[in-house]
Amino acid sequence: MADHPTGGDAPLVDLRSDTVTRPTVGMRAAMAAAEVGDDVYGEDPTVNALEAEVAALFGHEAALFAPTGSMANQIALQLVVPPGDELLCDADAHVVTYEVGAAAAYGAISSRTWPAVGADLDPGVVEAMIRPDGYFAVPTRAIAVEQTHNRGGGGVIPLPTLRELRRVADTAGLALHCDGARIWHAHVADGVPLQEYGALFDTLSVCLSKGLGAPAGSLVVGSAAQITRARVLRKRMGGGMRQVGVLAAAGRYALTHHLARLADDHARAARLAEALAGSGVLAGPVRTNIVPLDLTGHRLDARALATAARAEGVLLSVLGPRTARLVTHLDLDDAAIDHASKILPHLLTP
Amino acid sequence: MADHPTGGDAPLVDLRSDTVTRPTVGMRAAMAAAEVGDDVYGEDPTVNALEAEVAALFGHEAALFAPTGSMANQIALQLVVPPGDELLCDADAHVVTYEVGAAAAYGAISSRTWPAVGADLDPGVVEAMIRPDGYFAVPTRAIAVEQTHNRGGGGVIPLPTLRELRRVADTAGLALHCDGARIWHAHVADGVPLQEYGALFDTLSVCLSKGLGAPAGSLVVGSAAQITRARVLRKRMGGGMRQVGVLAAAGRYALTHHLARLADDHARAARLAEALAGSGVLAGPVRTNIVPLDLTGHRLDARALATAARAEGVLLSVLGPRTARLVTHLDLDDAAIDHASKILPHLLTP
Amino acid sequence: MADHPTGGDAPLVDLRSDTVTRPTVGMRAAMAAAEVGDDVYGEDPTVNALEAEVAALFGHEAALFAPTGSMANQIALQLVVPPGDELLCDADAHVVTYEVGAAAAYGAISSRTWPAVGADLDPGVVEAMIRPDGYFAVPTRAIAVEQTHNRGGGGVIPLPTLRELRRVADTAGLALHCDGARIWHAHVADGVPLQEYGALFDTLSVCLSKGLGAPAGSLVVGSAAQITRARVLRKRMGGGMRQVGVLAAAGRYALTHHLARLADDHARAARLAEALAGSGVLAGPVRTNIVPLDLTGHRLDARALATAARAEGVLLSVLGPRTARLVTHLDLDDAAIDHASKILPHLLTP
Amino acid sequence: MADHPTGGDAPLVDLRSDTVTRPTVGMRAAMAAAEVGDDVYGEDPTVNALEAEVAALFGHEAALFAPTGSMANQIALQLVVPPGDELLCDADAHVVTYEVGAAAAYGAISSRTWPAVGADLDPGVVEAMIRPDGYFAVPTRAIAVEQTHNRGGGGVIPLPTLRELRRVADTAGLALHCDGARIWHAHVADGVPLQEYGALFDTLSVCLSKGLGAPAGSLVVGSAAQITRARVLRKRMGGGMRQVGVLAAAGRYALTHHLARLADDHARAARLAEALAGSGVLAGPVRTNIVPLDLTGHRLDARALATAARAEGVLLSVLGPRTARLVTHLDLDDAAIDHASKILPHLLTP
Repeated sequence: MADHPTGGDAPLVDLRSDTVTRPTVGMRAAMAAAEVGDDVYGEDPTVNALEAEVAALFGHEAALFAPTGSMANQIALQLVVPPGDELLCDADAHVVTYEVGAAAAYGAISSRTWPAVGADLDPGVVEAMIRPDGYFAVPTRAIAVEQTHNRGGGGVIPLPTLRELRRVADTAGLALHCDGARIWHAHVADGVPLQEYGALFDTLSVCLSKGLGAPAGSLVVGSAAQITRARVLRKRMGGGMRQVGVLAAAGRYALTHHLARLADDHARAARLAEALAGSGVLAGPVRTNIVPLDLTGHRLDARALATAARAEGVLLSVLGPRTARLVTHLDLDDAAIDHASKILPHLLTP
Repeated sequence: MADHPTGGDAPLVDLRSDTVTRPTVGMRAAMAAAEVGDDVYGEDPTVNALEAEVAALFGHEAALFAPTGSMANQIALQLVVPPGDELLCDADAHVVTYEVGAAAAYGAISSRTWPAVGADLDPGVVEAMIRPDGYFAVPTRAIAVEQTHNRGGGGVIPLPTLRELRRVADTAGLALHCDGARIWHAHVADGVPLQEYGALFDTLSVCLSKGLGAPAGSLVVGSAAQITRARVLRKRMGGGMRQVGVLAAAGRYALTHHLARLADDHARAARLAEALAGSGVLAGPVRTNIVPLDLTGHRLDARALATAARAEGVLLSVLGPRTARLVTHLDLDDAAIDHASKILPHLLTP
Repeated sequence: MADHPTGGDAPLVDLRSDTVTRPTVGMRAAMAAAEVGDDVYGEDPTVNALEAEVAALFGHEAALFAPTGSMANQIALQLVVPPGDELLCDADAHVVTYEVGAAAAYGAISSRTWPAVGADLDPGVVEAMIRPDGYFAVPTRAIAVEQTHNRGGGGVIPLPTLRELRRVADTAGLALHCDGARIWHAHVADGVPLQEYGALFDTLSVCLSKGLGAPAGSLVVGSAAQITRARVLRKRMGGGMRQVGVLAAAGRYALTHHLARLADDHARAARLAEALAGSGVLAGPVRTNIVPLDLTGHRLDARALATAARAEGVLLSVLGPRTARLVTHLDLDDAAIDHASKILPHLLTP
Repeated sequence: MADHPTGGDAPLVDLRSDTVTRPTVGMRAAMAAAEVGDDVYGEDPTVNALEAEVAALFGHEAALFAPTGSMANQIALQLVVPPGDELLCDADAHVVTYEVGAAAAYGAISSRTWPAVGADLDPGVVEAMIRPDGYFAVPTRAIAVEQTHNRGGGGVIPLPTLRELRRVADTAGLALHCDGARIWHAHVADGVPLQEYGALFDTLSVCLSKGLGAPAGSLVVGSAAQITRARVLRKRMGGGMRQVGVLAAAGRYALTHHLARLADDHARAARLAEALAGSGVLAGPVRTNIVPLDLTGHRLDARALATAARAEGVLLSVLGPRTARLVTHLDLDDAAIDHASKILPHLLTP
C-alpha cells in the first residue's frame, strides 16, 4: 500500500471506492510547501497553476477548482442548461443519482433519462429523445455522459460512440458535458489522449480525489467565458475557498505522480475479476478499476456479502439489493488484492 | 358541430386538439346563472359543489379546482415529491414535456424517465428504476402515469397494468399520481368505473377543458390533508381565482352533459383511422379520440401535411418532424369527419 | 348593491375586501356572449382585444392575461430579475407578503426590503439600498412598488415620488415594476392619466377582479419582447387557460363600466372614515377605497372587533393582532355604508 | 508578520480582509501530520474531532465541517426555513449580500430585511416585522444576525440585545441563526463565553479561515438532528469532501493558537483608527478588527483612495462608492500597522 505518514497498519482491504485513498508522504510534502493566496481574489498561485494545467491537458481555455466532483458537475450543468430547460442523461448517471437532486433543486434543470446501459450508450436512442425549442415544450439544451461510468462498472464509452454523440449534439445545437470524474481511467485504458476527449465536450468535470489520490478537489473545464461565469456559480454553491492551494498542490502532485500508475489499478481489478470468474457474479467485463458484481440468484445478497467480507478484512460497496462493486486504488497493493482474491471467491461459493 | 352562440360558421375542421372546443349554448347559460363567491375565501358555492362532486366521482376525500391541467399536475407532484427528491415517469409524459419544466423549476423535483412507450408501460421496468432512500442518493418518492396517454396516441393503460404498478409503488412506499387530463376517455373506452381508477392513485389531476368541452379548469384529487396543502400551493402558483364559479359551472355542466358523449368522439376517431388505413401512416391503434400519425418514409413530412391540409380546411397538430395527430372533440360532427376522411387520405396518397 | 342575478339578498355588509364582488347582470351577459377561442394558441379574440386595450391604456406595447394578480406579479418579477439576483421592495409589499413566497421559491429572486411605510416611500432610502453588479455580491436588478398600497391603507404614491424613483432606477440601470392591482384607484383619486403611470414603469400588473369587479383576471403589461417571454412563464406557472375569453369579456365590461365609478367607493370609504373619526382607531388618511384601522390600546383587538361586527352583519379583515381594514367596492351601496357607519363606531366606543 | 514557509517578503500591507492570511509553519506542520479518512463516510478522525470540539465550544450537540462560511450559512438557513417561507435579517447581512442569492436561488427562502444598522439592531423593530403562519401570507420562520457584523464595521451586538431577540424569537416560535464567521472576535472583545453565545442560537456558522487564519473551512453548529440533515444538504451543495482532515487539522491548530491573539488584531485596528481620527473618515467606533471608512464629502472616493494606497504598499477594500474598510489579521504585525498608520492619514489629508 502507499506510504502513509500516519494511520498505522490498516487492517482492512478497502475496496469500497477509490475515494478512500489517503495522501502519500510525497503528496503531503507538496501540500506543506505549497505557495498560497486568497483564491476568492484569484490570488492563489498554486490554484492558478493547477487550473491552467488542467485546461491545457484537455485543450480548453480555462478551468476552475471546486471542492468536489458533485459541485464541479453541478456548476457545469448550470452553465449549459438554463433554469427550466432540459438535460438528457442516462438513468444511472451520477448527476441524477448521487448528487442529492441538485440539478433540479438548485439548477432548476429538468431531466429525462435514457435506459441505464452504462458505457454502452446508443447515440441514436439519445437523438430520438431530443426536444426542439418550442412554445411550451421543455427544450433540450444539453446531453451529459459519464466517462468512465461509475454505476456502469467502470466501463469506457468508445471514442466512435462519443464522436457520433458529438455529431448528434451539434445537429441539434446542444451542449455536451462529460462527467469525467474518472476520465483518467478511460485515457489510460483506451490510450485516448486527454485532448481528444477534451475536443469532444463543451464542458467537463474531472476529479483529483478518486483514482488520482488527492484528498479533495475537482475541476470544471470549459471556455474562458464559461469559467468566468462558473466562478460566480461556485460562490453561490458555497465553494469559494481561500488558501486552497494546499489542496491544489495535492492535485498537481497527483497529476504528475499518479496518472500513469492507474494502469496498476486496472491490472489489479482484472486480477480480482479473474479470481471471481468462476463464481458467476461478475456483472460485466472489467475495463478499468471497478469490478461490478450482480448477485441475482446467489444465496448471498449484497448486504450479506458485504458483512461476510468485512469479517474477513475486506470492504466492498453495496449499490442495490443484489448489486455491489469492488474498486481498486492507490492505497491497495498486490498483497491486498491477493487477500481479497482469496477471500471473496471463497465467500461466493454457490 | 355543437351549437355555438357566436363565431359564425367555422370554415375549418379543427383536428389539432380537443382543447379548442368552445362552450355550447347550454354551458354558457349555466355559466351565466352560476351562483358565485370568493373562492380564495372558500366561499364560491359552485366551486365547492364541483370539488365535492369530482372527489366523489373518484372516491377520494377532496378535490381542488385549478385554472389548468398543468397547474393541477404540478400541484399534485409537489404534494407527493419533496424538493430534491425523485419522480419517475415516462420520457413522453406531459408533466416533463409540455409543462415548461415546472416540476424541476418550481417543484425542485428530480426526474428520471422510462422509455416513451405510451400506454404500453411495463411495471417491471419501472420497478427496476426505483431508488431507495439513502445517504446522498436521490430517493424515488412517486411514479406518474398518464391516462389516456397524450403523446402515446390516446392509448389506455390496461387496468391490470395499473394494478401491478400500484403493487410496485406500495412495495417501495411510493406515491402514484395519475395525469388524468383525459381519464374520462379511458373510462368510456374501457368501461372502468372512475372510482376504480380513483382507488389506484394517491393523487389525480382531471381536466374539464379538453374532451369535456369546458372553457378552462382542472382539478387535483386527493386526501383531505393533501387538498388543504394544495390550496396553499395553488396560491403560490398564482391559481387562486375569486368568483371562479363561472368556470366551475361550465365544468359541472360538462360532467353532466359531455361525459357519455365521448363515445361519439371515439367512434369518429375510429372512422378517421379507417379512412387512413390504406395510407400507411397510422402510428398505432386508435383507442380513444386521438389518431396518431407517423410519416416516416412518407413523401410529406408533418409540417408539409399540415400545410396542405389547412389549404383544404383541415387543421392537425405537428408533434415532431415526422409525427402528427388528429383529435376528435365536441365541436366536430359527422360532417366534419366526413370532410377530413376525404381530404386526408387524398393528401397522403404515397 | 349591484344588481346580481343570483345569490338572494346578502344579509351581510362585506367590507373584507374588494375581491368579494360578484359579476353583475350586465357583466354576465357580456360573458355569455363572448366570442372565444383557444388562448394557448393565441386564438381567443376577446382575450386578444382585452390585452391590446390594456396595453394601450398604459401606453405599452403588449399585455398578457393571467388568472390572478399574484401570477401577473410573479411573471413580471421573473421578467425583470434573473434567478439569484435581487429585487428591492417595501417590507409590506404584496409581492413578498401575500404571494406565498413565490418570488423566492419559483423565481429564485433574492429580496431586500425598505421599511413598511406604504405609499410614503422615500426614493433616497431606496437608492441607498441598491447594490451594483459585482463579483459575488447579489446585484439589484429591479424595484417594485405597489399603487395603491394594500397594507398601506390604500395610499397613493404621489407622482413626484414615482418620478424620482424612476430617476433612481435609471441611474442604477434597474427595472421598475408596479404592482398595480389597484392602480385604477390611484388614477381616479389623483387624476393621473394611466398612460402617465405606464410611462414610469417597465412592467405593471393590473387587476380586473378587485375594484373593477370582474370575477377573475389580471394582466401583465410590458414590452412586446417581455410579453412574448411572459407567455412562456405563464405556461410554466400553469396559467395558460383555453377559452378564457369568457373571463376577458368580464374584464372588458369592467373597464368600460366600473372604472369611473371607483369614485363612489372612495366617497363611501371617506364616509366610513368620517363615522369612525371619533373612535381614535383610524390608522391613517383614507385616500381610496380602504379604511385602515389600528386598534393599539383599544379594549378590542382586531379579532374581537371582527367577531362583534359579524354579529351585527358587518364583515371586515383582520391584518394583524391590532390591525384591520374596511374596503368598499361595487357590491356595497349607500345603505350598506350607512349600516356599517352606525354599527362600527358603536362597537368601537372606548 | 506571521512566519510563512513560502511567499518571500510580501511588500504589501494587505488590509483588505482577514481572509488573506496564509497558514503558518506550525499550522502547515499540523496539516502535514493530520490523520485522515473519507469524511463522506464519516471516517476522517481529524474532522470528527474538530466537529466535536466546536460543538462543545458552543454547548451544542453537533457540528459539521463545510468548505466555506457561505456554505455553512446556507446549510443552516435551509435547516431553519422551509422552501417558500421567510427569513428576517438586516439589509446589510452577509447572507443576503455576499452569498450570490443562494438563500433564494437554492433554499427557496423568501427574505425581508430590517434597515442596515449593523450591530445596533433593535429587537422591537424585528418583532414588528414577524408574520404569523397564515393561509397564504409568507410565514416568518427564522431571524438571522451577524456577529461580529462585517458591513457593520466589525461591530459587536451586545449580549442584552441578543437575549431580547431570543425572547422575541421564542415568543413567535422562530429559529434564531447566528452568522458567526467572526464570533471569535465578539468573544474576545466583549469577554462573552462562546457557550453563552451558543445558548442563544438554534444554529450558528463559525469560520476558521478569517480571523483564525486557517486556509479554509467553516462549521455549522446545531442539534444532532439538524446536523444529520445538514450532512445531506452539504452533499447537495457539493461540499462533501473526502480526506478533508488536512483542512480540519489547520482549523484545530487555529482554535488552539490563534483565538486569544485576536486581541492583538483588535489593538492594531484601534491604533489604525487612532491614526485616522483626525481625517474625519471613520464611519464608526472600532470594536474588533475592522476599521470602517466613510468618505462621503471627502475629495477622494473609495476607489481613488484604494488606488493611491496601493501605490504606497497598502491594500484596502472598497465596499461602495464612498465606503471602504481596513481589516487587521494574523499576517500583519506592528510594523505593517505602523506603515499604514503613516500612509493613510497622509493620503486622507482633506
